[in-house]
Amino acid sequence: MALRAALRNKSSLSSLLSQRSSCRSHGRVCVSPVLVAQQRNNSTSPKIKVDFDQSTGVAVMQMQSPPVNSLSLDFLTEFCIGVEKLEMDKSCRGLIITSNQPKVFSAGLDIMEMYGKSPERCGEFWRAVQEMWLKLYSSNLVTIAAINGSSPAGGCLMSITCDYRIMADNPRYSIGLNETQLGIVAPFWFKDTMTNTVGHRTTEIALELGLLYNPSEALKIGLVDQLVPEDQVLTTATQTMAKWLAIPDHARQITKSMMRKPTIDKLTSNREADIQNFVSFITKDSIQKSLRMYLEMLKKRKG
Amino acid sequence: MALRAALRNKSSLSSLLSQRSSCRSHGRVCVSPVLVAQQRNNSTSPKIKVDFDQSTGVAVMQMQSPPVNSLSLDFLTEFCIGVEKLEMDKSCRGLIITSNQPKVFSAGLDIMEMYGKSPERCGEFWRAVQEMWLKLYSSNLVTIAAINGSSPAGGCLMSITCDYRIMADNPRYSIGLNETQLGIVAPFWFKDTMTNTVGHRTTEIALELGLLYNPSEALKIGLVDQLVPEDQVLTTATQTMAKWLAIPDHARQITKSMMRKPTIDKLTSNREADIQNFVSFITKDSIQKSLRMYLEMLKKRKG
Amino acid sequence: MALRAALRNKSSLSSLLSQRSSCRSHGRVCVSPVLVAQQRNNSTSPKIKVDFDQSTGVAVMQMQSPPVNSLSLDFLTEFCIGVEKLEMDKSCRGLIITSNQPKVFSAGLDIMEMYGKSPERCGEFWRAVQEMWLKLYSSNLVTIAAINGSSPAGGCLMSITCDYRIMADNPRYSIGLNETQLGIVAPFWFKDTMTNTVGHRTTEIALELGLLYNPSEALKIGLVDQLVPEDQVLTTATQTMAKWLAIPDHARQITKSMMRKPTIDKLTSNREADIQNFVSFITKDSIQKSLRMYLEMLKKRKG
Repeated sequence: MALRAALRNKSSLSSLLSQRSSCRSHGRVCVSPVLVAQQRNNSTSPKIKVDFDQSTGVAVMQMQSPPVNSLSLDFLTEFCIGVEKLEMDKSCRGLIITSNQPKVFSAGLDIMEMYGKSPERCGEFWRAVQEMWLKLYSSNLVTIAAINGSSPAGGCLMSITCDYRIMADNPRYSIGLNETQLGIVAPFWFKDTMTNTVGHRTTEIALELGLLYNPSEALKIGLVDQLVPEDQVLTTATQTMAKWLAIPDHARQITKSMMRKPTIDKLTSNREADIQNFVSFITKDSIQKSLRMYLEMLKKRKG
Repeated sequence: MALRAALRNKSSLSSLLSQRSSCRSHGRVCVSPVLVAQQRNNSTSPKIKVDFDQSTGVAVMQMQSPPVNSLSLDFLTEFCIGVEKLEMDKSCRGLIITSNQPKVFSAGLDIMEMYGKSPERCGEFWRAVQEMWLKLYSSNLVTIAAINGSSPAGGCLMSITCDYRIMADNPRYSIGLNETQLGIVAPFWFKDTMTNTVGHRTTEIALELGLLYNPSEALKIGLVDQLVPEDQVLTTATQTMAKWLAIPDHARQITKSMMRKPTIDKLTSNREADIQNFVSFITKDSIQKSLRMYLEMLKKRKG
Repeated sequence: MALRAALRNKSSLSSLLSQRSSCRSHGRVCVSPVLVAQQRNNSTSPKIKVDFDQSTGVAVMQMQSPPVNSLSLDFLTEFCIGVEKLEMDKSCRGLIITSNQPKVFSAGLDIMEMYGKSPERCGEFWRAVQEMWLKLYSSNLVTIAAINGSSPAGGCLMSITCDYRIMADNPRYSIGLNETQLGIVAPFWFKDTMTNTVGHRTTEIALELGLLYNPSEALKIGLVDQLVPEDQVLTTATQTMAKWLAIPDHARQITKSMMRKPTIDKLTSNREADIQNFVSFITKDSIQKSLRMYLEMLKKRKG
C-alpha cells in the first residue's frame, strides 16, 4: 500500500516535493515520495501521529512536535503528506486535528524558519504554509479542530480552515491572528479565512491589533464554535464528527466547495506573487530586527 | 384592465411563458398571457389567493395549495404571474406573502418535479424556480414574509428573498435550507441569498449540515427578523408594512437595488449554465435513488 | 514648515484644490495652498480646531462649526487639508475626531449645498465629500471617532471610516445613515463602508428604512465599538489610542490597507461617474422638492 500511495502522491504532491528536493543545496536531508510514504505508513514519523479508525472512517491527527507544535518546514511537509494520504484513502471521511503537547494546540509558524534564512529557503517555507492552508481549506474530508491549548497565529489559521472548532474552556488558553504584535502581517488568505469565519469588522480590529481571544471571547465572536471542559475536547469532537458524517458526502462536499472556492482561487491564482511578497517582506532588515528582538524577548522569559 | 396587464405581461413574462408553451409536448395545458391575466383578475386561480387593498396599496398573497404549498411548476408559474401583475400595478406598493395551509408556510420545491422527469421538464421547472427568486429578490414592492408555519428549503428561500420576515413563535415550526439532508445541493444563488442574510460562516455550517432552525434559533442567527404569537403574524406584518411604506418609494427602491443587484446579476448572467448544472445533477442515477429513498421514507411516515 | 507643507500639499491636494479654484466663478473667495497651510499652521481656521501633542503623536480634531457641524464645502475642504497635513507630519501617528458643539457630533452633509445649487457647484461639493471619505478611510493614522453627540447621515459616515468608535451613552443621541428618510439615497461607498462595519443584512434594513440607532442599539449591531458616560468620551479615546499605538505602525498600516483597499478602489476607479450620478439625481425637480419640504419642516420645528 505504501507504494500505491506513493505513486498516487507523486503527481498531487509534486509541487510541494519538488520544492523540498531543492533544499539539498541548503544542506538538508530530503526524502523521496516513496520514503515519505513508507515512513508515514509505519507511523514512525516523529512530528505527527495519525490514528485512523477504519470502522468509523475517522482519522485523528495528533500534533506531537515539542515543545509547542511549531509549524516548521519539516512539520508542514509531514502534515501535508499526512492529510493528502487520508484524502486519497476512500475509506476515510473525517479528520480530527488535535495536539498531544500540554497547554498548546500549535504556536503557529516557526519563527526560526523566517529569521536569518536565505530568500530561497524563506520561499520554500512559505510555499509549505500555503500548501497546508490549501489542503485543509479545500479538504473533501469533514475537518474538526479539537483545540486543547493555545492557538496563536498559524495555529489559529489551521483551526479556522476546519469545518468546526471545539476549544477547551480554559481561560489561560488563547486563539487569534496576532501577527501585527510581532511586527509582521497576516497575508490576504489568512485575512480572507478569518473574514469568512467572523466577518469583516471583527477581522479588521482583530488583525490590526493582533488580538488574542480567550475561549469565551472566541466563542462570542464566532472564532470557535463550541467550548467544553478540557478533558472532553476529543470525545466531543468525535461525537460532533458523527453528526457531520450523517450528511451524504457528495452533497456536503459540493456545498463546502461552493462556499470556499472563491477564497481558494484567490491564492491559487496568485501563489508565486504571494511567495515573492512574503520573501521580500520577511528578509527586510527592519523585519529581521523585529524578529530578533522578539526572539530575545522569548529567550529572556525562559531564562 | 386585464387586457392592459396582459399586454404589459407579454414582454416581461416572455422568457417564462415561452418556456411554459413548450410544455405542450409533455401533454400539459398551456395558457396564453391574456388568459392567464383574466384568470388572475377573476381570482379563480386555485393555488394562490391575492387580496389587494387599493386604499393601503398592500396586497396579501395567501398560498393555498394543499397539503403543504409545494413549489410545483404550476404553483411557481401562477406565483410569478401574480407577483408580476402586482409589480405592474402602480397603486400596489407592498406585498405580504403567507400561507393558509395549517402548520406550513411552504414545504419548498416539489420533489415530484425532480423525480423521474425528463431533462427538458427538469430544466423547465428549474427556470421557474429561478424566475420566482428573481421576481422576489428584485421586487420594487416592499415584500414581507408572514411565516405562519414550517418553511424548509424552497420555502426558506422564498422567505429570505423578502425585505422582512415575521415568524410564528411556535417551537414545532422550523426554517432552513436543508437540501444536503436529502442528498441534494442548494445552488449558488440560494447560498448567496442566505449569506446576505446571516453571513458567511452561519451559511457555511447551515448549508453543509442542512440545518433546520426553530423560531428562536432562527431569530438568533438573523434568519428571521421577528417572532410573534401565531395568531398575530398577519396583523404584525400589516403594521410593519405601514412602517416600510412611510419611506419614499424611489429612495427605498434604489437602495434595495444597490444592495441586491450584484447578487441578482450573478444569476441573470449564468442562468442557462445554472439550469444545465441542475439538470445534469438531478438526473443522475445516484441522485434519483436518493430522492426515491426520501419519497419512500415520507410514504412510510404517513402510513 | 508652512511652506514645506504647502509644497507637499501641492501635488496630493491638487485634485481637491483645483476644484476649489473653480469656485471663483460662483463668487467665492478661494485660497492658495500656501495660504491654507499658513492658516492651518496658525490654527486660525474657524471650523476645525486641531491640537497636536508632539509628545504622544496624537492629534485631536475638534469640529466647531455652529450650530451642528454641517459638512459644507468649506468645512470639508478645511477638514481634508487638516487631515492631510497631519498625515504628512511624520511625528503624527493618531487622530481623534470629536465635536465641541453641544449634543451633536456632526449633522452630516449640509443640505444647503444640495438645494438650489448649480450642477457644477453640486459636483464640486460631492467631490469634497468623496475626498473626506477617501482621506479618512485610507488614512495611515490610527483614527478614533469620539462621538459626543448625534451623528446622522454624513456624521455617521465620518464615524464609520475611523478605526474605532466611542460614543457617549446618552439615549437622546442617535447615529445612522438615514438618507432615505429625506428621500435621498446613500451612495455605494457609504453602503460599502456600512456593510464592512455591520454586515450585509443589517446594512440592508438600516439603509432601506433610513434607521437611526440610539447608542445601545448602535453598540448591539456593531455600529459603534464602545459606550462611555458623556464626560469620558475624550479621555477614553485617548486611552484607547495608546493601545492602538502600541502596535508597530508598518504592520498595522499594511493590515488596514489590506482590509480596506478593495472598497477604496471601487470609488477611486468610479469617481467621476459617481459625481455625475449624484449631480443628476440631486438636481431632479422631484428631489429638490423633497429637500424643500424637509427644509420647511426644519424651519417650522425651530419656529
